Amino acid sequence: MSASSEANPVETLRWDGRRLELIDQRALPARLEYVSCANAAEVAEAIRSMVVRGAPAIGCAAAFGVALEARRQEDCPRAEFDIAMETAFRNLAASRPTAVNLFWALDRMRAALGAGTRDDPRSAAGRLADAALALFNADLETNRAIGRAGAALVPGGARVLTHCNTGSLATAGHGTALGVIRTARDQGKRISVIASETRPYLQGARLTAWEMIREKIPVTLITDNTAGHLMRLGKIDLVLVGADRIAANGDVANKIGTYTLAVLAERHRIPFYVAAPLSSIDTSAADGSAIPIEERSASEVTGYAGMRWAPEGVSVANPAFDITPAELVSGLFTEKGAVTRPDARKIRALFPG
Amino acid sequence: MSASSEANPVETLRWDGRRLELIDQRALPARLEYVSCANAAEVAEAIRSMVVRGAPAIGCAAAFGVALEARRQEDCPRAEFDIAMETAFRNLAASRPTAVNLFWALDRMRAALGAGTRDDPRSAAGRLADAALALFNADLETNRAIGRAGAALVPGGARVLTHCNTGSLATAGHGTALGVIRTARDQGKRISVIASETRPYLQGARLTAWEMIREKIPVTLITDNTAGHLMRLGKIDLVLVGADRIAANGDVANKIGTYTLAVLAERHRIPFYVAAPLSSIDTSAADGSAIPIEERSASEVTGYAGMRWAPEGVSVANPAFDITPAELVSGLFTEKGAVTRPDARKIRALFPG
Repeated sequence: MSASSEANPVETLRWDGRRLELIDQRALPARLEYVSCANAAEVAEAIRSMVVRGAPAIGCAAAFGVALEARRQEDCPRAEFDIAMETAFRNLAASRPTAVNLFWALDRMRAALGAGTRDDPRSAAGRLADAALALFNADLETNRAIGRAGAALVPGGARVLTHCNTGSLATAGHGTALGVIRTARDQGKRISVIASETRPYLQGARLTAWEMIREKIPVTLITDNTAGHLMRLGKIDLVLVGADRIAANGDVANKIGTYTLAVLAERHRIPFYVAAPLSSIDTSAADGSAIPIEERSASEVTGYAGMRWAPEGVSVANPAFDITPAELVSGLFTEKGAVTRPDARKIRALFPG
Repeated sequence: MSASSEANPVETLRWDGRRLELIDQRALPARLEYVSCANAAEVAEAIRSMVVRGAPAIGCAAAFGVALEARRQEDCPRAEFDIAMETAFRNLAASRPTAVNLFWALDRMRAALGAGTRDDPRSAAGRLADAALALFNADLETNRAIGRAGAALVPGGARVLTHCNTGSLATAGHGTALGVIRTARDQGKRISVIASETRPYLQGARLTAWEMIREKIPVTLITDNTAGHLMRLGKIDLVLVGADRIAANGDVANKIGTYTLAVLAERHRIPFYVAAPLSSIDTSAADGSAIPIEERSASEVTGYAGMRWAPEGVSVANPAFDITPAELVSGLFTEKGAVTRPDARKIRALFPG
């Protein structure tokens, strides 16, 4: 059974029950190549090294990583199987700290494992494979629902600034913020996209530009420095981004530079929208200060892909994410609809019972 | 006679009366190399291709370009000499559109040429060489005065965010915004610098980081996306930038991304200071909308130094500068002192008579 879909021309994750293949996003757009993972440790390394990135895609990859490891260990005695699975969960949980979808997906997989504690490993492995695939398919459906919720608020002809990559490459398919753009386009709205390049990892320049060109959605690439200038000239109608984790009060952790765009949008009275599944909401984090911010390698800033442009000996700060306070968020698009001006009460209402 | 100075360990421009040598800033920090110019056309090309950049350094280079051309033509009859000089002025004026120091320097050189319209070309060439060197030396003195004016407002221990490069490499020496930092350091204040990398041309990563390391001033390099995050965490005490052109009302044209930093600084109640000589003020531009913004090549955004990371066929917007409205400027440091909250009246007062 394949985890891909006809509605999803970009197959970020390919799953056949014995192997997880991931588009190597480090090689895009120059080369479309797959990295093949046969166990949880390889999936964890693929997440750590950013072969796969984007909060929902990381969650799906981690779920498949658990399923892979279970399949690999299914002939062991149950006690050994349990130890191997525990190692797999720990390894995957340590791969990246900020995106909460990772932990959400691992919790789902733990629940699937726990649903038959005393059964034989082979049955458990089957259950985990089913759970991972269900999680993947649910993500695709979720993104379509987010797309419908968000597109209702995107006017025809809108010039939409987006940051990082939140498309098929960042999810099981369709995308979150880019999913809203896709749905709006499919509704006949003539959307154009302004993609900020998103230093240091250039997800905007490499991935968003590539996806938009593939989808024939007009896209203009800019440096991150150019967003404010275009807003001042009245050339941006709204900002639409994804999220790696949303706190209980609506504070949003997302790719570094998101906060700056939110501040600029507020000054220019431009809507600032966040598109994310409920699995990105961490109700255990009271506000943004409770969200850990991953610090990545200095080499991402001092150069790119083996080329170095900064002088030797320079100190670097390279936080991968920042926090946008809820007060700057005009609307949150989830699979349960659009929440305008999200706050703790409105977010609680998304999780009834 | 050399245009360098002992107080200026970075010799951005070297002048011997027959040749102008320019540090090739495109090769920094990997290699410290000089490009040699023997006539005005070569200087214009060096400005256009960013061998030399930074508003005051462009002004000085253009002045030396005029002087070089005069020396080259000094054995021609006066009529031919005048035609050659006219071509030189036109060529240099067309090299880059935004920095007004270029036009200011060319006006000075025109005045020096006009001061003896009927004399022989050899005398005119001597006068132009003297004028160019005087302009260079005046820029150095101006920067030291800007440094004193600005340093008075920089508290000890300040963590100063700066954008682009405004140091010795951008001027005849000492620098404008970096000159303020140097002066403050020389006064015994323990300054640390946060340098934004300044995409697309990476002047911060390549040039500011290099100069600060040479000067042993602590420097931390960040992506442009990281400035807002650090301000939110309370890790920036003030923002200090240069200017390519300042309008009569105090609006500031400077490197793309400057406006964004000014908006962020206002939100965080952090002072936003601009350091620039009077030659950067264009009293003929009523406000920022009268300042032409240079649009540069898409290739600066789609990759770097021959490496391409964006997909083929993507559209690009690459304005090299933006406009920061005067209302966001906490203070303007000039050789005539610090002007707090600059406006049309205060700027007029800088030009008595």
